[in-house]
Amino acid sequence: MKNTFGTNVSVTVFGESHGPAVGAVLDGMAPGIEIDYEYIKHRLKLRAPVGSISTSRREDDDFEILSGVFNGKTTGTPICIVIKNKDVKSKDYSDIKNIARPGHADYTANVKYHGFQDYRGGGHFSGRITAALVAAGAIAATALKNKGIYIGTHIKSLGDIDDIGFSDYRNDIDRLNEKQFAAIDDNIADAMKERIESVAKAGDSIGGVLETAITGVPAGVGEPFFDTVEGVLSHALFAIPAIKGVWFGNAYDMRESLGSEYNDEFYIDGKEQIATKTNNNGGINGGITNGMPIIFSCAVKPTPSICKKQNTVNFESTKETELIIQGRHDPAVIHRARAVVDSVAAIVICDMLSGRFGTDYLR
Amino acid sequence: MKNTFGTNVSVTVFGESHGPAVGAVLDGMAPGIEIDYEYIKHRLKLRAPVGSISTSRREDDDFEILSGVFNGKTTGTPICIVIKNKDVKSKDYSDIKNIARPGHADYTANVKYHGFQDYRGGGHFSGRITAALVAAGAIAATALKNKGIYIGTHIKSLGDIDDIGFSDYRNDIDRLNEKQFAAIDDNIADAMKERIESVAKAGDSIGGVLETAITGVPAGVGEPFFDTVEGVLSHALFAIPAIKGVWFGNAYDMRESLGSEYNDEFYIDGKEQIATKTNNNGGINGGITNGMPIIFSCAVKPTPSICKKQNTVNFESTKETELIIQGRHDPAVIHRARAVVDSVAAIVICDMLSGRFGTDYLR
Amino acid sequence: MKNTFGTNVSVTVFGESHGPAVGAVLDGMAPGIEIDYEYIKHRLKLRAPVGSISTSRREDDDFEILSGVFNGKTTGTPICIVIKNKDVKSKDYSDIKNIARPGHADYTANVKYHGFQDYRGGGHFSGRITAALVAAGAIAATALKNKGIYIGTHIKSLGDIDDIGFSDYRNDIDRLNEKQFAAIDDNIADAMKERIESVAKAGDSIGGVLETAITGVPAGVGEPFFDTVEGVLSHALFAIPAIKGVWFGNAYDMRESLGSEYNDEFYIDGKEQIATKTNNNGGINGGITNGMPIIFSCAVKPTPSICKKQNTVNFESTKETELIIQGRHDPAVIHRARAVVDSVAAIVICDMLSGRFGTDYLR
Amino acid sequence: MKNTFGTNVSVTVFGESHGPAVGAVLDGMAPGIEIDYEYIKHRLKLRAPVGSISTSRREDDDFEILSGVFNGKTTGTPICIVIKNKDVKSKDYSDIKNIARPGHADYTANVKYHGFQDYRGGGHFSGRITAALVAAGAIAATALKNKGIYIGTHIKSLGDIDDIGFSDYRNDIDRLNEKQFAAIDDNIADAMKERIESVAKAGDSIGGVLETAITGVPAGVGEPFFDTVEGVLSHALFAIPAIKGVWFGNAYDMRESLGSEYNDEFYIDGKEQIATKTNNNGGINGGITNGMPIIFSCAVKPTPSICKKQNTVNFESTKETELIIQGRHDPAVIHRARAVVDSVAAIVICDMLSGRFGTDYLR
Repeated sequence: MKNTFGTNVSVTVFGESHGPAVGAVLDGMAPGIEIDYEYIKHRLKLRAPVGSISTSRREDDDFEILSGVFNGKTTGTPICIVIKNKDVKSKDYSDIKNIARPGHADYTANVKYHGFQDYRGGGHFSGRITAALVAAGAIAATALKNKGIYIGTHIKSLGDIDDIGFSDYRNDIDRLNEKQFAAIDDNIADAMKERIESVAKAGDSIGGVLETAITGVPAGVGEPFFDTVEGVLSHALFAIPAIKGVWFGNAYDMRESLGSEYNDEFYIDGKEQIATKTNNNGGINGGITNGMPIIFSCAVKPTPSICKKQNTVNFESTKETELIIQGRHDPAVIHRARAVVDSVAAIVICDMLSGRFGTDYLR
Repeated sequence: MKNTFGTNVSVTVFGESHGPAVGAVLDGMAPGIEIDYEYIKHRLKLRAPVGSISTSRREDDDFEILSGVFNGKTTGTPICIVIKNKDVKSKDYSDIKNIARPGHADYTANVKYHGFQDYRGGGHFSGRITAALVAAGAIAATALKNKGIYIGTHIKSLGDIDDIGFSDYRNDIDRLNEKQFAAIDDNIADAMKERIESVAKAGDSIGGVLETAITGVPAGVGEPFFDTVEGVLSHALFAIPAIKGVWFGNAYDMRESLGSEYNDEFYIDGKEQIATKTNNNGGINGGITNGMPIIFSCAVKPTPSICKKQNTVNFESTKETELIIQGRHDPAVIHRARAVVDSVAAIVICDMLSGRFGTDYLR
Repeated sequence: MKNTFGTNVSVTVFGESHGPAVGAVLDGMAPGIEIDYEYIKHRLKLRAPVGSISTSRREDDDFEILSGVFNGKTTGTPICIVIKNKDVKSKDYSDIKNIARPGHADYTANVKYHGFQDYRGGGHFSGRITAALVAAGAIAATALKNKGIYIGTHIKSLGDIDDIGFSDYRNDIDRLNEKQFAAIDDNIADAMKERIESVAKAGDSIGGVLETAITGVPAGVGEPFFDTVEGVLSHALFAIPAIKGVWFGNAYDMRESLGSEYNDEFYIDGKEQIATKTNNNGGINGGITNGMPIIFSCAVKPTPSICKKQNTVNFESTKETELIIQGRHDPAVIHRARAVVDSVAAIVICDMLSGRFGTDYLR
Repeated sequence: MKNTFGTNVSVTVFGESHGPAVGAVLDGMAPGIEIDYEYIKHRLKLRAPVGSISTSRREDDDFEILSGVFNGKTTGTPICIVIKNKDVKSKDYSDIKNIARPGHADYTANVKYHGFQDYRGGGHFSGRITAALVAAGAIAATALKNKGIYIGTHIKSLGDIDDIGFSDYRNDIDRLNEKQFAAIDDNIADAMKERIESVAKAGDSIGGVLETAITGVPAGVGEPFFDTVEGVLSHALFAIPAIKGVWFGNAYDMRESLGSEYNDEFYIDGKEQIATKTNNNGGINGGITNGMPIIFSCAVKPTPSICKKQNTVNFESTKETELIIQGRHDPAVIHRARAVVDSVAAIVICDMLSGRFGTDYLR
């Protein structure tokens, strides 16, 4: 399957940047989960472009739920969420329909879809599609919160600016989920925003690393050999445009460490529970959760749309050409992508919990 | 599904470290692919422990093909490969069946399987299972070579020792695939081996980063939104024990770069083909291959089995305890894991090509 | 997955009878297939209730395509089709929300969804959902026609009234697909309609058997052991409400025959092609197409909604009660279900062809 | 996937009739289920050919479990079962490798596998493969019995000889599972065996209908829209060679009935449980179990291997020819297939229960 992901809880996405709508069908969610419309709006707002650090395309992201909800609660049947596209300026793209924007999917889509793809604004490859995922993920996150499971993401680094790390997970997650710009340290957030603005002024773009923490997932979840927590999460996360790397725990920062440093020693914590002193493995041993917070990082590449002149090709004529991208675009997407990462993670965790403990577990 | 991966070409693994056998069922491979028994043995040897830098458990890795092969060629039906376990010393493990070895899956397996898991030598979580994957992957790699697709992996870094990068992909891949220890630079290989030996003497272990190149995959392969090349590859790669991070192209090294640096400009190459000057995106745009080499890196954590005393818990009694691991283990697995990474990549690429171009494409 | 079916071409359905809309997401269709809006309308009309032999609920079945279509052609990305519910009289159902209508899913849905299901008009279990499948199937059927593959279904029997059999497949299929009431013989069609009317007057309902022919599928399609043509088709067909049996070729009529009668002898036909003289196996040997028409039959049970007083239970109070169903319902659905069967078959055949010959095969 | 079936519990089959072995990998079974070797042997014996009513190929069906079992119990990891082929007379088949045996998969396999298939004894299409399924199904059935779920199949009809129906499900199932020839009425069993013998003497073959009952499955199992109990069961059942039709409850016998006759009225039974007075829907409403016995029937076609001269083609030369099948074959497989049907059903029910109630439900 191509646009559907998940086993027991699954999500199907559809839509193009400049088509009538984007949407998602969230299937397999337990019945009886309250639909918190304000929370969904809040999550959509966290993904929405704000101020000068984002594209000037401004969608209200009004969403409509077409199915699977009755009396304000999930019914257990598929939930179709539709978000109409309104602020569409399609003519921006018609001139460059055969020009491969470097770093974008224009060329590869043309090879795969033989010229029939909707090229406007990136079509199905646009980050716009992720709005629907965010709405679906908000429902999943509500279900998880009912089980004491919380997810939060911060911008671990933007270019060479590093945020501080998580210290108190629950508190940090709560605070992050209220912030439009998700750095744990507010001063660092300001520095990051300034950097984005300065990069934008230079007609360029910037990326970084997102780090996500998920607390409250019980030990014993994950289905090795292949459906490890790492494998299933990464599979879904790489669907998010611009994500080019995923690692768990301290896999990258400690890549030069020795086993005696990397191993997480077990101990009995204050609640007579088995825990680990460090969490370099990101809460996962052998592909299965160990009860510690699940920690993973995503490398987000700089937005490929930049204002500078670039060399490229016209794939219709197979000739070289130069390109200056017009239209509206983001100097960085990392601060918007964090809401998508949270949502994808929420859906995947719902899937894994439902598979492990049954379809009624989350209600 | 848990131990089966793939859509059009799939692989199912089974076995435990100290059980009768490990094995794999490779399904959906095109008919008519020659089974090169010597090549399979060669690949198994690349994974096998050699010398003082690996465990002293020495299996001959004799494999038997039970099905799916007739007159020396694949029939198109499932190929079951079985590798018997012979050099088994199970008593090494009985004393510590309830002790959670830090960094291992003992505790998480116990939670998930309620004490019924085969704890000997890590059971189903042992790297031993990957022998079967290597054999299956050798068949997949043969099919790919027939289509001009080649895969090779080098140890990009071991601790703080860095190998040189790929310069001539086809040549480097061919040379790597002949080497028992896969660094591109032979002097660096020696330094890495010495490092492993010195770490081993200290009773410790070490990890690093593997980098893989796949050449010859045509443009237009990959099934976004979810079944991107990155997503499907990473899903499978994280099944390999000790892999904790996967990134594509230069996602990590260039995480501080600007879009103008990261974007891969397109041009028309000497064969009138569309190509990119750089390959920071690792041959993939929008989840679809662009015809450039597919490049990805895997972070391999230090082997969790070390000889030093560690603090941990007995999960049966829920009491803290100390542990000194006896038995045979590897001070590093990265030089053995490279053969597994190649194999997993080969199977995944066969799957994606078969889905894109049909079940007869690889014959 | 629950509401998604298919591997290389898949369909996801959503919606409830009295919710905002029903819909389907058709994914994996090749790019470049023309969207024939009139043909989709025509197919929807074949499923729509007409005259006194169907429910008095009259929906215009206006559909909207939200994605996956650009310049009138498929793009290769998911196609979301939405059909709004308009003629909704929800109060008809509120009185009986806890009463299990015999033969319906009210009770089983209540057990599964714990009372959160949308009970109005059968909710997600309503035949209404199949409208979206019909629209999706019309797109699939268009793609198949481009490859010379045609699908048609007739009412093989209604109660004890039998239609004549197929004689000239292509011609019969074309004629059936123009008929609102799909018997091959028009006089028999009249008799069947009269029977439905008389059953309706008696407050009862009636079922029968549908027989479907698919011509033009090349030999060699089907993926045994499990993904046989029979297995995949039946899996999808049983999703259609009221279908309780599926058989291929003459499996039922010839269940008392000997092998010498049942075997289909091969011969070389006038076009130097291998063919069979009879087609008792329904065009499938060993789960793989043999090039002959694929023939299957579906048993359609009498509509469970009848006007007669029935004994049943209130599943909230767990007490016995009597029920006379109010509201609008069908004395028979078999003449409407034929359009759904065609559509499901079209989607499944697209899936199997795309898997066998690649994602570009149907364009 | 082709040779793997199931979502939360899955089975992968492999092997050819005259290759080294046939086998199955059963994955996802809960840990802690006792392996009853005698019971597995008993089940294999029910499938084995006995006396003059079956082929003279006599395999001892010794099986070996290569993985997933430790200390006599399932571990929760994949269970690989291998059954070696011993009584192989491959030369019987070499003469007819290019001759399409009518009713067999020789021709379709040749188209699909391009001549590389193992043609000996039907290769991967042989009923021999089902031996491994029977062994896997025996493990699944053991797990189900622990939950009070029982499965039994009888020969509802052989040619025009009808068995009596189920009267006391639990008792009938227990008795059937002890019988080598599974008719409920012993006199009818004798008549059926005589019929097979007389058909065999005439060089012909015969089929019939199997009826299966599954008792003890709780209400609320099944995943509509697509993963209905009917859909998932039929998908798997059609994999069994010779099965060409599947229907549930009384779908066929009552195809001429009215809704008032077909509907199953609900009532409160002696244990204060909701039940139905009749069970025409076979224990399933809306694709979900209602707590009544699940009842389904399978049409088994006459064995295609007959001793009579048949007209057919040589698909290598594309010329017509005559064929008299030599070698060992069955005049009927229905009495052997019943054990396979039980096993397939057991695996499917384990899968659906594990999906509904979690991976620990069956332990």
